[in-house]
Amino acid sequence: MLGSSSPIDDFYAIVPAGGVGSRLWPLSRAGEPKFLLDVLGSGESLLASTWDRLVPLTTKDRIAVVTGYSHRSAVRQQLPDLDTGMTFLEPQPRESTAAICFAAAVIEKRHPGAIIGSFAADHLVEDQREFRRTVRKAVESARAGYITTIGVHPTEPSTAFGYIEFSDEKVTEGAYRVSQFVEKPAARVAKQYFESGQYVWNAGIFVAPAALLLEELRLAHPQLAADIQTIADAWDGPEGFSVKDRVWEHIEKIAIDYAVAEPAANRGKVAVVPGDFGWDDVGDFASVAKHILAHNVGKIAILGDSPRVMTDHASGLVIGSTDRVIAVIGVDDIVLVDTADALLVTTSKNAQRVKGMVDSLRISGNRDVL
Amino acid sequence: MLGSSSPIDDFYAIVPAGGVGSRLWPLSRAGEPKFLLDVLGSGESLLASTWDRLVPLTTKDRIAVVTGYSHRSAVRQQLPDLDTGMTFLEPQPRESTAAICFAAAVIEKRHPGAIIGSFAADHLVEDQREFRRTVRKAVESARAGYITTIGVHPTEPSTAFGYIEFSDEKVTEGAYRVSQFVEKPAARVAKQYFESGQYVWNAGIFVAPAALLLEELRLAHPQLAADIQTIADAWDGPEGFSVKDRVWEHIEKIAIDYAVAEPAANRGKVAVVPGDFGWDDVGDFASVAKHILAHNVGKIAILGDSPRVMTDHASGLVIGSTDRVIAVIGVDDIVLVDTADALLVTTSKNAQRVKGMVDSLRISGNRDVL
Repeated sequence: MLGSSSPIDDFYAIVPAGGVGSRLWPLSRAGEPKFLLDVLGSGESLLASTWDRLVPLTTKDRIAVVTGYSHRSAVRQQLPDLDTGMTFLEPQPRESTAAICFAAAVIEKRHPGAIIGSFAADHLVEDQREFRRTVRKAVESARAGYITTIGVHPTEPSTAFGYIEFSDEKVTEGAYRVSQFVEKPAARVAKQYFESGQYVWNAGIFVAPAALLLEELRLAHPQLAADIQTIADAWDGPEGFSVKDRVWEHIEKIAIDYAVAEPAANRGKVAVVPGDFGWDDVGDFASVAKHILAHNVGKIAILGDSPRVMTDHASGLVIGSTDRVIAVIGVDDIVLVDTADALLVTTSKNAQRVKGMVDSLRISGNRDVL
Repeated sequence: MLGSSSPIDDFYAIVPAGGVGSRLWPLSRAGEPKFLLDVLGSGESLLASTWDRLVPLTTKDRIAVVTGYSHRSAVRQQLPDLDTGMTFLEPQPRESTAAICFAAAVIEKRHPGAIIGSFAADHLVEDQREFRRTVRKAVESARAGYITTIGVHPTEPSTAFGYIEFSDEKVTEGAYRVSQFVEKPAARVAKQYFESGQYVWNAGIFVAPAALLLEELRLAHPQLAADIQTIADAWDGPEGFSVKDRVWEHIEKIAIDYAVAEPAANRGKVAVVPGDFGWDDVGDFASVAKHILAHNVGKIAILGDSPRVMTDHASGLVIGSTDRVIAVIGVDDIVLVDTADALLVTTSKNAQRVKGMVDSLRISGNRDVL
């Protein structure tokens, strides 16, 4: 039953689709961010995969997408079934709290008592059935009065993700009270978390009654909560856009983990449902390479439209989008991304440095390729 | 006196300018071979540097260039002082014996008693004064009746060059009788050669009376010698081109080391003048990287027209000829060559594998980039 495809009563999904994904440059760009890309060569974008994953949990008209004006047409093209009334456009990027709570406040106004779940637009889930099972448990915990996050059982002591510590106190079936949220740890600390069994990866999913989410925001960030309520109250009226544009410009920029999840956890109001559904945030090319090579025979994976890649004594990932000949000889774990105006050559081990390179390009006057 | 710039009496230089230099692909191409390129960023091509190096040893009208029809205009553009009568065009590439002996036979016919010296069009010489001093010694040995090669004192036990073993028997000042020519050795053998002090690198330079060179060829390869004589006898007459084109097509393809130098050495007719003039054949990107990095501060050298190369935790050589952004992160000793239609990524250690890659491209239907 939990893994079934029947819609959950009163359940609304919110997909904040912002963020360039700088660590995937030059594949991801400001104009073509990670969520619009098929970075894993699956045949559809991460956003479209997210949509497909959520549809069986609710109905198509109960999925909201929050994105920037500049991505509106690309999002509509990729998600033809997205309801216009569930498309929330941000005049400027203002971090996840504003994005998620804006949509949550409008949904709560339209459908009092709604349960919302927020899901990143650019993550990978391999086991859809187990994912649905886990979300359904989280909805039950949310109905019991908890902001409920979904945690992923670590498969390695990763330093690339935040962690959630949970207690033995069960609040509903499969849901446990959260002790604390912790940032991306150092390697030594990650190892302790991994071995303890009391920590899960923070997958950035929050399920809660919309009213509870907004109330917890009000307690911790009253001004931000008031700004969002101002927008939501006007939204479905004639002044909706102008009120939003005016308030949005000055709205507080803060991630929902800090603005809501941590303060609420300190007040005992957050639960976590640990799950195992093959999750990854596909945050950098090491992650991309790992997933693609797992489905490849041989040591080198070639992705994209580039038909003329030749390798010798090489392993890793080559992503091409030009018709140039690309010859790679004697480099292991290479990550090579060839585009018309920019070329990246690095290795899986150095994948985390790509963001710094993007910063350097910005400073050095090469914004045209960002 | 030996290092001076006055012309040597009766001395003619022959520069065979053939060979693509496959190990420098995609910088070198069939249409733009290594000798036409400024692979070291010196400001002029290897061919033009060769010309400049030879002018002080002879006179401009005594330097011959042997090259393919397709390179005629590029050669003339790079060497505006090259005499039309000293430009020898090959209908097809037929290896070094045909190229050098064709020019030598014509020169001997025009100037009986000429001493010729053949010099590759695409090698590097750093110490011009010592080079001239060494050639002058070789001319003295040639006048004494020896085919005289120039050997380079090894600076390391290289496996990339052929070696020449010489005896203690001095034939003229600085010239010693050659015991044998040996091919590129294995590492263990190269170490023995290097430590013995009796071996020098074969720099591919031969200095000899033209008549002696042709006579030694006649003894070892009478048909090839006869074909060359047929061409030379007709060359300056009305049938010159048609005779050459007819004979050339079927002329034997063989390197001059095998056709003349080795047989003559077995008969005691070859001497070597060891020298130290900073020689290299610039045969692959490891060699290019070594020479360029020797003149660079820092761990990474950037060569070419590419203004937008960014590196982080990287070392090696980046050669760019596009205006794309090139970002290299965390790869050591990289060799990256970015051209409009082909990209090479390898390391110095793997530079020798580039030739094999070129062969693979040929077989796999990618001749358009060769």
